[in-house]
Amino acid sequence: MTSGIPDSIMALVVKQDGYNPNPEGGIHFETMEPYLEFKEIAVPDLAAGQVLVGMAMAPINPSDLHFLKGEYGQPRRAGKPAGFEGVGTVIAAGEDPYAQSLIGTRVSFAATPDGTGTWATHAVAEAMLCIPQPDSVGDHDAAGFIVNPLTAAAMFEEAKAAGSPGIVLTAGASQVSKFIVALARDSGLDSICIVRRDVHNQVLTDLGATVILNQTEDDFAAELTSTMKERKPRFFIDAVADATSTQVFNAMGKDSTWMIYGSLSPETPPLPNTGELIFRNKVIKGFWLSPWLSGAALDEKLAVFAEVQARFSDGRWSTEVGATVKLDSAVETLVEALADPRGKVFIQP
Amino acid sequence: MTSGIPDSIMALVVKQDGYNPNPEGGIHFETMEPYLEFKEIAVPDLAAGQVLVGMAMAPINPSDLHFLKGEYGQPRRAGKPAGFEGVGTVIAAGEDPYAQSLIGTRVSFAATPDGTGTWATHAVAEAMLCIPQPDSVGDHDAAGFIVNPLTAAAMFEEAKAAGSPGIVLTAGASQVSKFIVALARDSGLDSICIVRRDVHNQVLTDLGATVILNQTEDDFAAELTSTMKERKPRFFIDAVADATSTQVFNAMGKDSTWMIYGSLSPETPPLPNTGELIFRNKVIKGFWLSPWLSGAALDEKLAVFAEVQARFSDGRWSTEVGATVKLDSAVETLVEALADPRGKVFIQP
Repeated sequence: MTSGIPDSIMALVVKQDGYNPNPEGGIHFETMEPYLEFKEIAVPDLAAGQVLVGMAMAPINPSDLHFLKGEYGQPRRAGKPAGFEGVGTVIAAGEDPYAQSLIGTRVSFAATPDGTGTWATHAVAEAMLCIPQPDSVGDHDAAGFIVNPLTAAAMFEEAKAAGSPGIVLTAGASQVSKFIVALARDSGLDSICIVRRDVHNQVLTDLGATVILNQTEDDFAAELTSTMKERKPRFFIDAVADATSTQVFNAMGKDSTWMIYGSLSPETPPLPNTGELIFRNKVIKGFWLSPWLSGAALDEKLAVFAEVQARFSDGRWSTEVGATVKLDSAVETLVEALADPRGKVFIQP
Repeated sequence: MTSGIPDSIMALVVKQDGYNPNPEGGIHFETMEPYLEFKEIAVPDLAAGQVLVGMAMAPINPSDLHFLKGEYGQPRRAGKPAGFEGVGTVIAAGEDPYAQSLIGTRVSFAATPDGTGTWATHAVAEAMLCIPQPDSVGDHDAAGFIVNPLTAAAMFEEAKAAGSPGIVLTAGASQVSKFIVALARDSGLDSICIVRRDVHNQVLTDLGATVILNQTEDDFAAELTSTMKERKPRFFIDAVADATSTQVFNAMGKDSTWMIYGSLSPETPPLPNTGELIFRNKVIKGFWLSPWLSGAALDEKLAVFAEVQARFSDGRWSTEVGATVKLDSAVETLVEALADPRGKVFIQP
């Protein structure tokens, strides 16, 4: 142990345990009070390979919100700080030399089961999983460095490996979609973005989106059909999982994959026409970053980290920033901040 | 060409073209008259590698019925005989020596695009795709030798290759399911049969079914959950694709595959909970015999043919026989015959 450890940690801690027995889906909240409270907690002892990070900033991702509802791939633990990722500076470390070497370093990191959440003044992280950041990667980009960028990069690699000439994206103007649009352009693949509003079309076009389809337009079904015929994408990366998703997949050609990574809609969509699965060799599956992070080979992960860092450093990728809320008032202000359509919401100590 | 060719062929020919633009699903028919007519057609010229088979018997499979409705993986051709498979004796052949060598031989075969359907007095088949049958394989087994047995064998191989300790089957008492139950027993895998009626339970038990669950019982959901926990099957072979199928898949553990090969229900089921796909690495796909027949390696196919022949010869497999209808009255009698629950319906010239 070294000095620099605070007397206590102030954090937004989870109020409920386990899973929601009756999942409602979606990420809409009327109020945060049943789910989160601002509270003082003790500073955990650091294991040899752990570091204590003085938090600078943490993003609010859809996965955080599903988790708070008890509708994510891991159970809630009442009394533990929320927040899956963030950026900050290492102020103390366990006895392991590599952990010690990180003291004073600005790092991005994702919370682990043995550590603590990032919506706090300080968080405990695994030194081996910290990603030191150069000054060229700003706090907003560094705070959301892992969940969205790595999800985008890992899913894009799977689409590319499937040999598809293009990728269809729902929530087409989301952060993950925008990252994928840029990756697709750089690899010469089509990107077909399904959006609900036209406000982000210029941004998507500037990033290199091939086709933008507004699902609320009267001619959506016809445009969808003709786009699928012309572009023949065989990979569908879906954040929403609603009836429009089923419609999109039904319109895609044979040998297509529907990969669901988010559940932004509370609706349960119908299965595609069974003929699409039986006669046209189409497959439905999911994607979750967590097993990818623990399962992918280290060199594969390092290559993806380096790619993400390079893209944020030179501006090919950037995080669209919405509201920023303060840790001590987030329980009251978060719902309104999340309604802000400008971009991602962040929490600052 | 050799002699022995009849003046004309009497056949049940398809009346409609192409696909049904508004698929209704299922295999229920009020009447066959819009779909089939009994008609005299000319005898096609035989190509070098083709044979003319004097038909002995042909089965009526669900795939035939989906096809007649225009809801199968290939378009209808008005004026062409229906019937995907059957058994008969080769009475004439094209000039190819192997085709010639089959004259007088009793063969099972599946109809091909260049040949003609099996619901007829005679059918044109590809000599290379004919399977000569020993006397030990009776007409009912030989007539339905390809579609159901090969579907069962090919799907079972995929389940086994996936390393699943067991297989869940809907339409648990169907011919395909029974074949798979026997294969599973011989390989030491569990088979869990979902049925709607208890009448076939003794047959399934005798074949080696591990668990039989009646989906109409009040305690079905509880029994399903406890069976999945105890047996941990990870492969679901589904002929029905209805809401019960979704319920079954939701109850299965992580890394499970839902393989849909039939669409006996006209209902469109909901997609499983998206969390099952995202967090539990579950996959939904289809199976169709047609690409397997053209895609699998020859030695793999020959091994499967030999296995099927051995099982029918020694009685490990047998076809459950329902009604038999005559070719010339089938348009009028088929609907009633199909309502007979005893087993598969056959057509005889």
